[in-house]
Amino acid sequence: MGDVLRALIDALGEDVVVHGEAVAARATSYWDASPTRAMAVLRPRTTEEVSVALAICHRFDQPVVTQGGLTGCVQGAVASEKELILSLERMSAIESIDPVGGTATVQAGVTLQAMQEAARAQDLLFALDLGARGSCTIGGNVATNAGGINVLRYGMMRALVLGLEAVLADGTVLSSMNQMLKNNAGYDLKQLMIGTEGTLGIVTRVVLRLHPLPTSCNAALVALESFDRVTELLSRMQRDLAGTLSAFEVMWNDYYRAATEPGGHRAPMDRDYPFYVMLQAEGADAAADAARFETLLENAFEAGLIVDAVIPKSESERRALWEVREDFEAMLHGRTTFLYDVSLPIREMTSYVTEMRANIAAEWPDARCIVFGHMADGNLHLFVQPGVDGAEHAVCDEAVYAPLKSRHGSVSAEHGIGAEKRAWLGYCRSEGEIAVMRALKQALDPKQLLNPGRIFDPA
Amino acid sequence: MGDVLRALIDALGEDVVVHGEAVAARATSYWDASPTRAMAVLRPRTTEEVSVALAICHRFDQPVVTQGGLTGCVQGAVASEKELILSLERMSAIESIDPVGGTATVQAGVTLQAMQEAARAQDLLFALDLGARGSCTIGGNVATNAGGINVLRYGMMRALVLGLEAVLADGTVLSSMNQMLKNNAGYDLKQLMIGTEGTLGIVTRVVLRLHPLPTSCNAALVALESFDRVTELLSRMQRDLAGTLSAFEVMWNDYYRAATEPGGHRAPMDRDYPFYVMLQAEGADAAADAARFETLLENAFEAGLIVDAVIPKSESERRALWEVREDFEAMLHGRTTFLYDVSLPIREMTSYVTEMRANIAAEWPDARCIVFGHMADGNLHLFVQPGVDGAEHAVCDEAVYAPLKSRHGSVSAEHGIGAEKRAWLGYCRSEGEIAVMRALKQALDPKQLLNPGRIFDPA
Repeated sequence: MGDVLRALIDALGEDVVVHGEAVAARATSYWDASPTRAMAVLRPRTTEEVSVALAICHRFDQPVVTQGGLTGCVQGAVASEKELILSLERMSAIESIDPVGGTATVQAGVTLQAMQEAARAQDLLFALDLGARGSCTIGGNVATNAGGINVLRYGMMRALVLGLEAVLADGTVLSSMNQMLKNNAGYDLKQLMIGTEGTLGIVTRVVLRLHPLPTSCNAALVALESFDRVTELLSRMQRDLAGTLSAFEVMWNDYYRAATEPGGHRAPMDRDYPFYVMLQAEGADAAADAARFETLLENAFEAGLIVDAVIPKSESERRALWEVREDFEAMLHGRTTFLYDVSLPIREMTSYVTEMRANIAAEWPDARCIVFGHMADGNLHLFVQPGVDGAEHAVCDEAVYAPLKSRHGSVSAEHGIGAEKRAWLGYCRSEGEIAVMRALKQALDPKQLLNPGRIFDPA
Repeated sequence: MGDVLRALIDALGEDVVVHGEAVAARATSYWDASPTRAMAVLRPRTTEEVSVALAICHRFDQPVVTQGGLTGCVQGAVASEKELILSLERMSAIESIDPVGGTATVQAGVTLQAMQEAARAQDLLFALDLGARGSCTIGGNVATNAGGINVLRYGMMRALVLGLEAVLADGTVLSSMNQMLKNNAGYDLKQLMIGTEGTLGIVTRVVLRLHPLPTSCNAALVALESFDRVTELLSRMQRDLAGTLSAFEVMWNDYYRAATEPGGHRAPMDRDYPFYVMLQAEGADAAADAARFETLLENAFEAGLIVDAVIPKSESERRALWEVREDFEAMLHGRTTFLYDVSLPIREMTSYVTEMRANIAAEWPDARCIVFGHMADGNLHLFVQPGVDGAEHAVCDEAVYAPLKSRHGSVSAEHGIGAEKRAWLGYCRSEGEIAVMRALKQALDPKQLLNPGRIFDPA
């Protein structure tokens, strides 16, 4: 046993330090059931234990990888044998909820779903929502600045964090547990921890912003003939549903067809329309909101903007419609699939998709290229299935990312960079920007111990 | 003439470098008509000229103070004779507006009002709004993370900035002109410039987020008997006006009385109620929104939450109501007044105001203490009028700020720290937090040249 492990066990006890064969008994991630590789896994119960652990690692120059719910998509939390894992899994308490101020104070290891449910129990909404809700944690949501389906209305995780506590690379506890919407007393230090993927500190506690719980919900799946009409529908609905539009999810025809293939979801409408949009508005006046929603859809129909629509008549019908958009795992099975999460200005989307598809077809003529996403946020997800054996991931990356450059797009809208997209960061960030990122890393973690090599190469 | 001035004139020309007597011909600020003190005033026309200027200042170790609209309240932009002023006044172009993406690309020196009007001309809303709109600039709004009256619905300036370009202390141009709602490709560098009061860089261009322009507006001034009822009204209105409530401004009785004194504003209702709230909702369905707003007020009246209400019947009546809340200059004339801008959790407000008033009364028995503010944001403004000659500002500061400590409040909700509040930063930020602020300053401006001594003492 190495010196650092001995020092950790002496300070924190065997119960906190998982080592030896017990490490391999843990799965690598939600996506990868193979045994975890790491020198050890720390499972601290308190911020103080995280601080003690990091102080020891700092003394021994020991790299540390932070783990939350392990649902991340960019290999950010997958460790090597030389790295030590620090998991927040035991710090999962919801400490308090303040209904007057609309805040919740929680530990970083609480799952998103547990937080959503605790808020709902007090007639409040924690507005972040995404498919991994059952496993992903608030700490991970902060570290990755998580997005999801409600960003249009409530913003990304950054907009939902009022304060936080983090442990820096040397073990210093940085407590900045602000509870107010407004606080301009000096630098807003929480921004250093939001979306920096655990490279500047380990988030241990968070003050979250809650919203009133909507009491009405109106949704529809609509079909459209062109992308121009999709953008016009978005503009109209944002204007006319004033503040209540919460989701506007677009699916290109190939996505909708793939999701409704025989054996998949039942197709709620014809499968030949060029575009489908799942939209949802949430308000506080059931009768009036439903009437208004239907009137706006009728108007859009009469104006020729939409050509077909399905309005669910029950909660189970509404959920079934959402499944077409959210439950896509079946279309990934049994085929090599490369997943992407890009963002770009809405006005560039059509030309981007055309160029990207051409790039893919030039490499693999039989490839399937599935496009959908959070269009109002400028965020598209792509599934590329080359349809041949041995297709190289990097070749596909180039085909997908290169057309973003001239369009001022991003290689990561919401998943982050992690280890997987590091080589492509330069496609959307300048040398100057990356130099400033490195300067921040150098200022806060000069030994490069926290999630090293994630986002950018070590300095 | 010193070497640095000679070098600046050689590089940028006499037209850009205001020096000698012309400096004193400029007023110090919106609040202070006395002559500007500074070594010189630079008026660059482009980002490149800002870059050249800062590179020269860096070479000569010359401190630089950035100026926008000069409406700041914390002496952040007031220079000394040893400092050089860099004003963005010539960089006031609105470069482009993208109605599909809902973005505007502007230079930092454009006024807030010009930006609001340009957006409105395209049926879009730039949602930041505050009293200084006619003079304050977008660059200053970014540097101070401006707040104002729409934060409840749209967030502070931080939520309205998608990308920006800044010049660092050594003249490096950091361009990060993101246009998308989502971009998680590495650190979100714009956060370094938002709310850091020009201490880490000079913002030259900004990509702003626009929103759909609301087409209905409903407002009311209401009276309430207790602060508990004010908080209950806020909860109800946030819930029942789902996403459309845009302002909820509370006035304690002393504010309302002072604003409606003889010679001041006409009192829209009785002057003896303990609390008044100005609320406003903006939507997209004139008839339905008005009916709903009135119904909710009737319900609040029947439930005993509110005891009186004035609903304006015209736009001019609505503006007259807002003037009671916004036009308070008359109550400041002719008396020593100390202005404050604190924030604290809403649940602590009543006890805070009681303790703060007792502190003031203990010092000055005849003092007037006027309380109002953006209550939904946790933000109170205070006007303290000691009523005696020679009252010391620092004594008043202590009386106002000390009761914030145990309540986890902030000495600055939206005005920032500047030079004026620097001594009080430690009342709401820990040594550890200030140490991290200094580490960031050291990383980006190691010579301490940009707005030196603002926010915290030099390292």
